[in-house]
Amino acid sequence: MGEPRTLRLNAQDNVLIAVDTVPAGTVLPAGPAVTARVPRGHKIAAVPIAEGAPVRKFGQIIGFASAPIEPGAWVHEHNVVLHEFDRDYAFASEARAEDVLAPAAQATFQGYRRPDGRAGTRNYIGILTSVNCSATVAHFIAEEIARSGILRDYPNIDGVVPFVHGTGCGMAGQGEGYDLLTRTQWGYASHPNLAAVVLVGLGCEVFQIGRMKAQYGIEESERFRSLTIQESGGTRRTVEAAVAQIRDMLPAANAARRETLPASLLSLALQCGGSDGYSGLTANPALGAAADLLVRHGGTAILSETPEIYGAEHLLTARAESVEVGEKLVGLINWWKDYTARLGGEMNNNPSPGNKAGGLTTILEKSLGAAAKGGTTTLRGVYRYAEQIDRRGFVFMDTPGFDPVAATGQVAGGANVLCFTTGRGSAYGCKPTPSIKLATNSDLYRRMTEDMDINCGDILDGVSIEDKGREIFDTILAVASGARTKSEQLGYGQNEFVPWQIGATM
Amino acid sequence: MGEPRTLRLNAQDNVLIAVDTVPAGTVLPAGPAVTARVPRGHKIAAVPIAEGAPVRKFGQIIGFASAPIEPGAWVHEHNVVLHEFDRDYAFASEARAEDVLAPAAQATFQGYRRPDGRAGTRNYIGILTSVNCSATVAHFIAEEIARSGILRDYPNIDGVVPFVHGTGCGMAGQGEGYDLLTRTQWGYASHPNLAAVVLVGLGCEVFQIGRMKAQYGIEESERFRSLTIQESGGTRRTVEAAVAQIRDMLPAANAARRETLPASLLSLALQCGGSDGYSGLTANPALGAAADLLVRHGGTAILSETPEIYGAEHLLTARAESVEVGEKLVGLINWWKDYTARLGGEMNNNPSPGNKAGGLTTILEKSLGAAAKGGTTTLRGVYRYAEQIDRRGFVFMDTPGFDPVAATGQVAGGANVLCFTTGRGSAYGCKPTPSIKLATNSDLYRRMTEDMDINCGDILDGVSIEDKGREIFDTILAVASGARTKSEQLGYGQNEFVPWQIGATM
Ligand SMILES: [Ca+2]
Ligand SMILES: [Ca+2]
Ligand SMILES: [Ca+2]
Ligand SMILES: [Ca+2]
Ligand SMILES: [Ca+2]
Repeated sequence: MGEPRTLRLNAQDNVLIAVDTVPAGTVLPAGPAVTARVPRGHKIAAVPIAEGAPVRKFGQIIGFASAPIEPGAWVHEHNVVLHEFDRDYAFASEARAEDVLAPAAQATFQGYRRPDGRAGTRNYIGILTSVNCSATVAHFIAEEIARSGILRDYPNIDGVVPFVHGTGCGMAGQGEGYDLLTRTQWGYASHPNLAAVVLVGLGCEVFQIGRMKAQYGIEESERFRSLTIQESGGTRRTVEAAVAQIRDMLPAANAARRETLPASLLSLALQCGGSDGYSGLTANPALGAAADLLVRHGGTAILSETPEIYGAEHLLTARAESVEVGEKLVGLINWWKDYTARLGGEMNNNPSPGNKAGGLTTILEKSLGAAAKGGTTTLRGVYRYAEQIDRRGFVFMDTPGFDPVAATGQVAGGANVLCFTTGRGSAYGCKPTPSIKLATNSDLYRRMTEDMDINCGDILDGVSIEDKGREIFDTILAVASGARTKSEQLGYGQNEFVPWQIGATM
Repeated sequence: MGEPRTLRLNAQDNVLIAVDTVPAGTVLPAGPAVTARVPRGHKIAAVPIAEGAPVRKFGQIIGFASAPIEPGAWVHEHNVVLHEFDRDYAFASEARAEDVLAPAAQATFQGYRRPDGRAGTRNYIGILTSVNCSATVAHFIAEEIARSGILRDYPNIDGVVPFVHGTGCGMAGQGEGYDLLTRTQWGYASHPNLAAVVLVGLGCEVFQIGRMKAQYGIEESERFRSLTIQESGGTRRTVEAAVAQIRDMLPAANAARRETLPASLLSLALQCGGSDGYSGLTANPALGAAADLLVRHGGTAILSETPEIYGAEHLLTARAESVEVGEKLVGLINWWKDYTARLGGEMNNNPSPGNKAGGLTTILEKSLGAAAKGGTTTLRGVYRYAEQIDRRGFVFMDTPGFDPVAATGQVAGGANVLCFTTGRGSAYGCKPTPSIKLATNSDLYRRMTEDMDINCGDILDGVSIEDKGREIFDTILAVASGARTKSEQLGYGQNEFVPWQIGATM
């Protein structure tokens, strides 16, 4: 055991984080003498904090000193309060013109340029399903293609992937629950990582393929085919017809070639799941640094998981580009409060006893840990679940926190690369969008190396968040160019398509 | 074209059903002269019906004559009303002691007798998942077992089946949404068609395996193993560990042998999906006749799909064994009204214009068509979703109408055989419970013969409902004894496990 380690997360912070438990009396290198034992994960005052002055962590206010705090003091519930003052949304008060690099200076990757101007990072063919009733047929189609061995003749195609789910009928035929399923299906059908899709239905389901085609003006083409089991005359005939359709799609899909494209065509989904006390200290801020880099290079970074930024939304409203963008975010928060109340639940809006024991003093501090992966740039847009992202820069999409559901919305919105931070150890993987998994601590990285792409635990050993952000950014470019993530090597991504269900299953 | 056909569904009925459109002036064989053109699927008065007298179809009141109705008249909205009178629940007024055959006289089948006294009709090993985050690992485990070829040495095992789903986290950790997922998992884990199960989790999910084990007093054994990806150290190690556990389970599972068992050990799930105008005329009442036979032979028949019996619940309350059983059903109806209202939806409680054009005059008539598959015997119990069915005879389980969700609850409750009526043409199939599909019309049967087990369309050609019920009952016994259904021959059942989600995904 060497000296207990501490960490300053942001230059504006007036607290340090105890990486290891710090005994009373420890004199920190280049810092104050610690006046009380501080458990690991907790906070130590770096400078004097006057009564009523903000306590800053992540560069953000997490509360206010309820008494004068001396340098070296333990900073926690006994000397920090959170009052309503800071719930001021301060719409757009911190918006700024972003320093986006000129196209010639932007980083590049090797991707597939698609007819709509977007970039693919993979080149799959998808088998979509309108309803659970066609899920097995979708699998049969994919299995028949695999069994035939035909993909050996089309080496530029990454695979033929069924995307099945548990809904599409026994649901209301109008309203946001229906609309978001439509957006999700269309988001996948038109996704730049899918060269072509076949959409297979049963026929009598609530989610009608014809209605979706009419809504988006979709024509049958070599990039989009649809059919139903009832019209095709049963399982076997549907499989045969869809296999024939896919065979027709293969030559054009295989003709796609990677070319040098600017990083501005990357759309990065930000995710966390299985979080721990280190998430907000290591992987999340490092991912935030990578998101800032991507925005600087003209790309897009999508923060989501609305229930997990709850309490910290005013920081995003302050970063909003305009009052409208900020108000849209507040509208989402209010929708969630109402929705969970109607279902007899509640937003978990206090740090739990476990969180507090881990050093989280206020709800802001907790949500800031999650929001840290969104970096620091101006919020350019707020999107509904699965809505097409049409702005560059940092944006927010409304999703639940549950990983597969959240990621499905982001991918439908156009995300062509995904970064997922985890402390407990998620095994998440995605198709058609490659998913880079970041361990928040070195223990986890060692324990699950075969599942983890990047170790952010070494931030606790002195690697700077900026350097780690650069490493993540470089990995994003490599993966976007075709380098396979751990979850792709393992074969993940066929079971993680989970469209959000907000209405009653009837 | 011969004579237009008509049908009397029940000896107590005072209306006939026009199977084909009947021109005005047609003299029906052994019936009245028809006084107006009656479209196919609509009703014709068989006898005089006095003003205010009940109109009976399916042997049940569907409304009351709003004017005197002459024999041969078209019976529809213009001369039928539904008033509040008949919404009297008349609890237990029609309950009767059932004529159950003595054990020696009961039909038999060849099944697996399980240690808990229940009977298996199949002999699978299951891979259950606590959360979507372990879904892909569950598939990898099944694929590794398949790849190894080891099942060739264990011919009495029907397969190793992953049961994956889209929930288990991002949900409240208490309340009915959590409880019903627990019941569903335990219902599958203990199902008599599964010789043994492995339950695989991620580790940090809301649905905790340890909590479920404590709740049911489950010990690790050769019939139940559990593990998590986080504790096992990632994907590959989890797959290896679970494959080893399953290898250990194979000898005991393979030792199971079919023996002659009484039909009283059969628990029949009643389902309909993709209904049409013939469902209530052919397949549903024929399935009801089969359910009555099964009850007579001491077995259990489970009606479900609460939103689809809405409006006809008073007929079930009258058949209830006791006031308590009847009140439980009314409680479910009230819960559904409140639940759908809270989610901004509504129970579809009027025949739609399409239904009316098809000949359905009142909401009772519509729901009666669905309820007809429950036969006529006394209602012995009302169960929550996925609750273990512990009564013999005819029972009701609360489920949504959406087929895979409804069937998942019934199977969790112990159903070891399933009959599914369809008019539009469902491709549903189930594991571990074999699913017999009944076509409501001969057109569908011809179009999707490879998916349909029984044609009930010939009822329109003169086959009696009683004879068709006997055919269905005999098929149930054969399938329970190992005869493979069409959906089993095709390979269905790995994608239809869909636990009901009633709470918010957060
Ligand atoms: Ca999260
Ligand atoms: Ca998450
Ligand atoms: Ca139904
Ligand atoms: Ca149904
Ligand atoms: Ca699946």
